[in-house]
Amino acid sequence: MISMLTIEPRYQETDKMGIIHHSVYPIWYEMGRVKYCKDMGLPFHVIEEKGVMLAMYYLTSTYLKPTLFGQTYRMETKLTQLTKVRLYFEYRLYDDLNECVHIGTTELIWLNKDLKPTNVSKSHPEIYDAFLKATAS
Amino acid sequence: MISMLTIEPRYQETDKMGIIHHSVYPIWYEMGRVKYCKDMGLPFHVIEEKGVMLAMYYLTSTYLKPTLFGQTYRMETKLTQLTKVRLYFEYRLYDDLNECVHIGTTELIWLNKDLKPTNVSKSHPEIYDAFLKATAS
Amino acid sequence: MISMLTIEPRYQETDKMGIIHHSVYPIWYEMGRVKYCKDMGLPFHVIEEKGVMLAMYYLTSTYLKPTLFGQTYRMETKLTQLTKVRLYFEYRLYDDLNECVHIGTTELIWLNKDLKPTNVSKSHPEIYDAFLKATAS
Amino acid sequence: MISMLTIEPRYQETDKMGIIHHSVYPIWYEMGRVKYCKDMGLPFHVIEEKGVMLAMYYLTSTYLKPTLFGQTYRMETKLTQLTKVRLYFEYRLYDDLNECVHIGTTELIWLNKDLKPTNVSKSHPEIYDAFLKATAS
Repeated sequence: MISMLTIEPRYQETDKMGIIHHSVYPIWYEMGRVKYCKDMGLPFHVIEEKGVMLAMYYLTSTYLKPTLFGQTYRMETKLTQLTKVRLYFEYRLYDDLNECVHIGTTELIWLNKDLKPTNVSKSHPEIYDAFLKATAS
Repeated sequence: MISMLTIEPRYQETDKMGIIHHSVYPIWYEMGRVKYCKDMGLPFHVIEEKGVMLAMYYLTSTYLKPTLFGQTYRMETKLTQLTKVRLYFEYRLYDDLNECVHIGTTELIWLNKDLKPTNVSKSHPEIYDAFLKATAS
Repeated sequence: MISMLTIEPRYQETDKMGIIHHSVYPIWYEMGRVKYCKDMGLPFHVIEEKGVMLAMYYLTSTYLKPTLFGQTYRMETKLTQLTKVRLYFEYRLYDDLNECVHIGTTELIWLNKDLKPTNVSKSHPEIYDAFLKATAS
Repeated sequence: MISMLTIEPRYQETDKMGIIHHSVYPIWYEMGRVKYCKDMGLPFHVIEEKGVMLAMYYLTSTYLKPTLFGQTYRMETKLTQLTKVRLYFEYRLYDDLNECVHIGTTELIWLNKDLKPTNVSKSHPEIYDAFLKATAS
């Protein structure tokens, strides 16, 4: 499954270079993950209500072209790898000419309520299965 | 007591007008409150560890002059009024010529752990007394 | 004209109290203004391309109820007053039970490219007229 | 040269997990670079006034341990590589027990005023030399 999200940069997200500030993209990745969870039928706030959280462990951002206020972008979010304790996502941002302007990757770890790593396939198999099913579709 | 805080605007806080974005100032007010609590000897994270939180109820911002990346400002934070359930702060930002460039005011409500309003003078008299003492000094 | 915008709070906009941080609302107001300009047929980035900008002069926020990640809100943006040099907007945020949870007001000043106040009804009558028409509709 | 910066996380930088949100770290890296430029005697806003800007091209973040509001951290910023068109920085964040809690790396490109890549060693040799000298010290 690839999840689609429309990004309309906020004015507040610009900086004095006139472009979207580079620190904004990880926030967009998070929006992409939230959209992914919604698309697979298990909203992220419902996942958290079940008693697990996702912590960022590793993130990369590749800035191919600047993005601008007033333009509209399409973000594709894909779960590229799934283990019993980790999730790997990739995010690709396209402009209105369908050119890829940005690529992000993240590696996330499942944590329990005490912020300790947890094997979600054991603690919450229904969550693990939902992601497993999403990667296959 | 008036608490002093040096503000060096972050590049990320600028916008495409080339100035600090107007949404940043309430964050600076919060830093001013945190400094105020530190100066009165009761750090804000210690207050929260005691089981109470401060929720914003009303805020005003007056933007007299733009602020800029690369400049340094002085923020003065003052507790202007104190009741058993609310705190009123005022924030004044000065540039290096000692001109006031921004004024903020906030009205905050004490909440307990269930996010319900609480009379802090009863539930945590040591916190109330610390603020009372600060206003008098 | 009243402009409608759906707000889905971002996870990044939450704070350790578990609610949306109070500094986020002015950013939502700005999104409301951008939507208002779009709805009246004159996108905000087009206004800026014409050589004028809008600077915040005065802002108020009234926090009636906290807002939450995972919930959806409706923001109504209204231009309440228009002069030759200033714009006054009001923003009302409603939850899914149609209860008003937040009210904001802003007073903005037209600036030219040198960041000096400008009488937009003279310098850019087509912009002034667009807003005038919007208030009447 | 290794540049030192004290980081006191802002309350606004926390999220509903109770820790500093992962999108904040790139903003801290930027503060580290600004401090680095200040330490080498060429403030970043002065660099920009000379007509060049630095654009982010690639960024990595490794989140070893969460960071918290109420704690103080030390960030070390180091220029790890310098070419005529690019700068590579590394950032290491340490807690008060001197444990490394976060590592970031960034690759930045020099741009001229038209946002085009530029060979800064030719266009602004004094800037290039200042960084070269800093790496050697």
